[in-house]
This record gives sequence, structure tokens and C-alpha cells, in this order.
Amino acid sequence: MAQSVSDVFLSFQQYLDNEQDVREEIRLTVRDLEQTARGILTLLQAIHQQSGIATIPEVCEKSKAHFATVREQYKVLKSKIPEGQYYRFHDHWRFVTQRLCFLVALSIYLEEERLVQRDQVADMLGLCVEQDKGFHLDLDDYLSGLLMLADELSRFAVNSVTAGNYSWPMKISAFVTEMNLGFRLLNLKNDNLRKKFDALKYDLKKVEEVVYDLSIRGLKPSGDADAVPKSG
Amino acid sequence: MAQSVSDVFLSFQQYLDNEQDVREEIRLTVRDLEQTARGILTLLQAIHQQSGIATIPEVCEKSKAHFATVREQYKVLKSKIPEGQYYRFHDHWRFVTQRLCFLVALSIYLEEERLVQRDQVADMLGLCVEQDKGFHLDLDDYLSGLLMLADELSRFAVNSVTAGNYSWPMKISAFVTEMNLGFRLLNLKNDNLRKKFDALKYDLKKVEEVVYDLSIRGLKPSGDADAVPKSG
Amino acid sequence: MAQSVSDVFLSFQQYLDNEQDVREEIRLTVRDLEQTARGILTLLQAIHQQSGIATIPEVCEKSKAHFATVREQYKVLKSKIPEGQYYRFHDHWRFVTQRLCFLVALSIYLEEERLVQRDQVADMLGLCVEQDKGFHLDLDDYLSGLLMLADELSRFAVNSVTAGNYSWPMKISAFVTEMNLGFRLLNLKNDNLRKKFDALKYDLKKVEEVVYDLSIRGLKPSGDADAVPKSG
Amino acid sequence: MAQSVSDVFLSFQQYLDNEQDVREEIRLTVRDLEQTARGILTLLQAIHQQSGIATIPEVCEKSKAHFATVREQYKVLKSKIPEGQYYRFHDHWRFVTQRLCFLVALSIYLEEERLVQRDQVADMLGLCVEQDKGFHLDLDDYLSGLLMLADELSRFAVNSVTAGNYSWPMKISAFVTEMNLGFRLLNLKNDNLRKKFDALKYDLKKVEEVVYDLSIRGLKPSGDADAVPKSG
Repeated sequence: MAQSVSDVFLSFQQYLDNEQDVREEIRLTVRDLEQTARGILTLLQAIHQQSGIATIPEVCEKSKAHFATVREQYKVLKSKIPEGQYYRFHDHWRFVTQRLCFLVALSIYLEEERLVQRDQVADMLGLCVEQDKGFHLDLDDYLSGLLMLADELSRFAVNSVTAGNYSWPMKISAFVTEMNLGFRLLNLKNDNLRKKFDALKYDLKKVEEVVYDLSIRGLKPSGDADAVPKSG
Repeated sequence: MAQSVSDVFLSFQQYLDNEQDVREEIRLTVRDLEQTARGILTLLQAIHQQSGIATIPEVCEKSKAHFATVREQYKVLKSKIPEGQYYRFHDHWRFVTQRLCFLVALSIYLEEERLVQRDQVADMLGLCVEQDKGFHLDLDDYLSGLLMLADELSRFAVNSVTAGNYSWPMKISAFVTEMNLGFRLLNLKNDNLRKKFDALKYDLKKVEEVVYDLSIRGLKPSGDADAVPKSG
Repeated sequence: MAQSVSDVFLSFQQYLDNEQDVREEIRLTVRDLEQTARGILTLLQAIHQQSGIATIPEVCEKSKAHFATVREQYKVLKSKIPEGQYYRFHDHWRFVTQRLCFLVALSIYLEEERLVQRDQVADMLGLCVEQDKGFHLDLDDYLSGLLMLADELSRFAVNSVTAGNYSWPMKISAFVTEMNLGFRLLNLKNDNLRKKFDALKYDLKKVEEVVYDLSIRGLKPSGDADAVPKSG
Repeated sequence: MAQSVSDVFLSFQQYLDNEQDVREEIRLTVRDLEQTARGILTLLQAIHQQSGIATIPEVCEKSKAHFATVREQYKVLKSKIPEGQYYRFHDHWRFVTQRLCFLVALSIYLEEERLVQRDQVADMLGLCVEQDKGFHLDLDDYLSGLLMLADELSRFAVNSVTAGNYSWPMKISAFVTEMNLGFRLLNLKNDNLRKKFDALKYDLKKVEEVVYDLSIRGLKPSGDADAVPKSG
């Protein structure tokens, strides 16, 4: 019997070793993704500088080029995940994916002044959106990325004014207002997402204060009034 | 644009509602499983009573009958889990599965005085052991169940002596020693399992002290020496 | 045998006593360093007062004089550390060293409007930067000092405006932006440093809001636009 | 200036990468050491089994053979640690070193019934004891190993009785008593070690109870009375 017990246990070691190997390979690939994401973020930070607004199209173009690398890296990552075990290891790539969603959403917003759709983000990352197809873009990660966007845009509204651009704050105010209404439509049970959503009201407030400052000084661009959303 | 943003968000509500529904159904089914597990545990607790040892075969027989219900309930549970999302919701049934592994392992040990294999436990629960086949019996849960078994057996060794049975402690001592050696073969990286394993040495010590008490009083059954495993 | 065991243990007492003595002496010397650092900090706090900006060169001059004392105290401290045991006792002087790095960095920034280099800080403290030469200025401590600088400068930007000086906020904004980009280049694994770095974005936001307030009120000095870095 | 700041930061990345690489290599080597230590422990666990006492000399011999591997692995480990940075990375190998000290101390005690000296342990591990010579056997780690020994011996005393050997408990009682007196000579400031030392009194109590049980039943071997230490 002594023999059989140790045989049983030895057979598990391979399983455990294998799990460790998978985790290690995931870690390395996620580190590469983080490196690429850091590069894209650094590029997009240029918008906050005085001369940044003029170069937005150029900066967005450059940042998009890096997403080819992102797609390659997700392809590698996908190949590391055993079938049906996406959620087993999800925590490893959750944060970098949220950050990449944010970066896509920021690029698209700056270029097209609109909310990026989930399937567009997924396309940019080389992922699908269907949960039953394995490695996908989880809705929670997409929504977290949008909340990061609101934070970044509130900062951009402030810096736009500094750079003498008064139309971005108006557009951002309309956009963040809409996003806030959108999130309010959701019945968020997920505690993590709910906490992040709670911070959205501070972003909105900050943007509203910028618009107020412009209005009271007669600096509000007249044509942009149309962009402000009707409530409801 | 206001329209489109709220449309985007409304489309998520269905997804989120759906997730909530799945979680709620899982919770209800897991509650049923827990109820059944509690029933089996109550049955098996009889072994700790004075008159319990005599009725072990009977108690094991009765407890096994309940596993038909367990299998039915896992079947329901399995039907609730969308494909590829086992690990997304694993935490819901993790604990009850560990407890059921323990209960199977206890029954088998009491009847056959041997370590139950993982695939036998899986059979009793109506599960498979292959990770790539969806709803399976996770290795961690099986191992956690074995550690619960060691804890229970150390208690049973004490109560056997109280009931005047001196051979169970001898057999349990040999068995827990082997199990301890088996776990030592594993390079456990999983912190959770490692912590539970650390408690095994206290179970072993407790059992050894029971055997010691029998030995020093000359109550150690002589024939049982054979049951003690040879080292190596 | 009893004799020998107690002999073994008695021989350890000397070692343990010795360690205690070393720690006590380190504690006393670090206390002196902290006293000096507090003095320098008090001096430099003058910049936050209404009349402070005018006296910056004078305040920096005075504060520099105290670094002669700092160098003396580090010399004493170095003499207390047995060879090869820098990292054994590092925690004792880690915090005061970070604070002193910050104070050097602040003085240099106020005088020369530039980022102090690590070897310059080391010079001011009488330390080397090479790890293999024993008592050195650890990179982590230098970087922590820089993050304290960003925090202090965001406060100084606010108080400069109060004092009617609108050019410091512009310069500080450019500087903290650069420092933020610099830190983003680093792949920080050190959790402690990473957490401090996360606070940098709040410092940056605060400074940007000060510049915003100046801009919207038409108080932004025109000539300072040159000081803002070009992206890239 | 923007250029110079990023240059400063880029120069740090190599340092940070280098630190990460060192840590990774240390981790891998420590994992090998842990594997060897686990093997030795499994071997020595045989003493707790019924037939184990007879095979002590053989088991100790076998376990010693593994220390050649241990020495090789420490040699590799030593080669990974930059000069003067032993204490920077000490936490990585602290625990496995304590366990290996315990294993040496156990082997030596079982063979020679005496306390192993620190320099003997260091020899077995291929380390020196002098702190100023870089990679050494830290006193704390040696003492922690001795406390693990006391715990193991209290268990061995119990199992010796079960195996019908009444002389080991007498010898262990004398030995643990002495060790307790030895530790009491030390003025332990180190909190970690102090906490482990607090557990020594339970080991001593357990061993004393075994001796009491033997005495009251007239099972105490007469010749061994000499081995009991005089207090003081």
C-alpha cells in the first residue's frame, strides 16, 4: 500500500509542475504586453503638453501602429492558455487588458470624438468578444477601460484650456456626461467595477467646473453648444 | 450620439443581467449540494460515538446512497455553467466539492482502509477529471478533501480508543504517515493548499500520541504491527 | 555534555550583544542625521511663505551649508557598519536617506531648475553610488527622493501663485511632466517604489490645475511657453 | 532638458532589469535547494516509523550523501550573489537554510547524541560562519534550525516509546532540557527568533510527559538516569 500512495502523489507532481510552467509563460508574455502598453501610453501623454493638441492626429496614428505588436502579443498569450481555462488565469492579464482598452478608447475618442464599441476594441487587440470562444475581451475589462478614459479626459480638458483650446472641454463635458448616464443604466453588482464607477462622478465634476470657468468668462465657444447632450 | 452611447450601455445590461442570473442559479444549486453534503456528514459523524464503530459498514452504505443525489445535483450545476466558464464561477462550488471529496474519501477509507483515487471520487460525484472537458474535479479540491480526511481521522483515532477499539488508531497512524509522506513529495506552490498541508503535521502528531498512549499502557494490538508501512 | 551546550550558547551571546550594540549605535547616528534633515527641511519650508520666493537663493545657500554636517554624520554612520552588511541594516537609514535625497533635489531644482543626478546627490551626502563599494546611495532611495520632490513642488506651485509668482507653476508643470515621463520609462517591479510612483500622477494633476487656473484668468506668463518641453 | 531627463531614467532601467535577473536566478537555485531538502527530510522521516529506530545509522548515512548536492547548490547560489549583497537577498534563502540546519542537526544528534556546532553545520552546507566573508551561515538561521530540532525530537520521543524504545526519550529529555537552558542564556532581541523560542517550552513539556509516563510505569531504563542533566 505504501507504494501505491506515493505513486498516486507522484502522478500529481507533473500536473502541478505543468501549472507552474503555464503561469510562468503567461507572466512573461504579459510583461511584454505591459511594455508595449507603456510605450503607447507614453506616446499619448503628449496630448497633455502645450503643443500636444496640434499633433493629436499624428500621435494617434503612431499609437495605432503599436497595436500590431499588441495583437501579436495577445496571439502568443492565447496560445499559452489551455482550452477552457481562460478564467483560471484571467487575473494575470486583467489589468493590462483594461489599460489597453483605455488606450484604444482614448485614441478613437481623440480621432473620432465618439465612444469606442466593445467589438472595435476587441478588433484592435486581436480578440473576440464572445465568452464561449475562449480568449475574449471580457466586458468588465472593457468597462474598466472606459472609466480610465473618463479620468484621462478630465485631465485633458484642464490641459486643453491651458493650451488655449476651449472646444475640447465642451466636447469632453458632453461625452463624459453621456458616459455617466450610460453607466447609470447599468445595474452593477460587480464590486470592483462599482468602486471604479464611483470615481466617475469626480471626473464629471472636474469637467463641469472647467466648462463653468469658461462660461463665466465668456470663453465658451458658441458653436459647440450643440454638442451638449439633452438629458434623458 | 447621446442615443448611441445609451444604446451601447443598454446592450450590456442584458449581459450583466444574464451573469447575475447564472450566479443566482449556481448559488441555489450549490445550496442544494451543501444540504446533501451536510446530511452525509451527519450520518458519518456517527463513527465518533461509542457505538459507532460497530455500525461503520452500515453507515457507509447509507451515506453512499446519498451520492446518487449528489450526482444529480452536480448534473444540474453543470447545466448552469456556460461552456468554458468553469473557472469563472469555480469559487461558488469549490468548498462544497472539497467537502464532498472528503466525505467520499472517508467512506472509502472506513470500508476499505485505503486512499481513494481521484477518478474514484470523480465517479462518485458524477464528474470527470479532465480539465479540458469542462466541469471536472479539480486536483486542488481533491487534495484539500484528503487533508480534511486526515483531520477527521485524527479525531476518529481518539474516539476509537474511547470506544475500546485499539486497532483503528494503529491503522490510522500508518495511513496518515503515508499520506504525509505523499504530500511531502509534492512541490506545492499553491499557497492555499500549502497552508492546509501545514496543518497535516498536527493531525499526524495527534495520531502518534494516541498510539503512544496505547503502547505505553500495553494496549497496542500485537497483530496490527503488520499494518504499519515499511519505510521507503 | 551539559557544559558543552551552555558553552556553545554563551559564545553566541557575544555575537548577539555585538549585533545589539551595532544597531544601537546606528540608531543614535541615524537620529543625528534625522535632526539635521529636519533642520534643512525647516529652512526650505520658507519657500512656501509669501515672502519666500524672493529669498530662494539665500535659503538654498543656507541649506547647503548644513550638508557639511550631513556628510560628517554619514561618515560616522559608515564607520559603524561592518563590511558587507550594508543591506543588513539598510532599513535603519533608508527613510532619512530618501528625505535627504529629496532635500538635495529640491535645493538644486530651486537654484538651477533642473533634475539632480544621482551622483550629485551622492556627492552632497558624502556617499558613492557603486553598490560594490559598501555604503552607497541606493537607487531606490534616490528615486523615492525624486518622488518626494514632485509632491513638494506641486505644493510650491500652489503657494507661488498665492505669492503672486506665476512663472514657477509653469516651470514646475514642465518639470513634473518630464519626471512623469521619465518614471514611465521604468519597468518598476519594486512594489514599494511603484506605490509611491502611483502618487506622482496626483502631483502632476495638481500642478496642471494650477497652470489651468492661471491660463483661464489670462495670468499665464507669455515668455514661459518656451520652458514647456516639446513632446518626444 | 527633456532629453537629459529621459536619458537619466533610461540609465536606471538596466540597473532595475539586472536586479530582476539576479532575483530570478536566486529563486531558481533556491528551488533546487528546497527540492534537495525535501528529499533529505523524507528520508529522515523514517525514524518515526515502527521499524525506524533500528535503521537510524543507515538513514543518517543516506541523508548525509545528499549534502554533497546541497553544497553544490549553495556554491551555485553563492555565485549568483553580487559582492556585499548577501543581506539584500537573504530572505530568499533564509527558510531553506534554516531547514537544512535542522536536518544537519538532526542527523548529527541521531548519530552522536550531541548538539551540532555552528561551524559543523556550515561545513556540511559548504558555507563559512564569518559574516565579513560574504555568503555565510547566519547565526539566526542556525538557531532557528536548532529550535526545529527540538520540535522534531519531541515527536521522536513519542514514537520511540511506541516502537518500544525507552532510552531515546530519556536522552532526548536531557538534551532538550540543556538546549532550553542554553537558549535561556541568550538575550534574544530578534522578535522572529524569540517567537520560535517560545514554542520550545511546549516541546520540553511534551518530552517531560513522556519521561513521566515511563517513570510512573517503571519503564524508565535505569542506566540512562546518568544522562539526565543536573540543572544549573
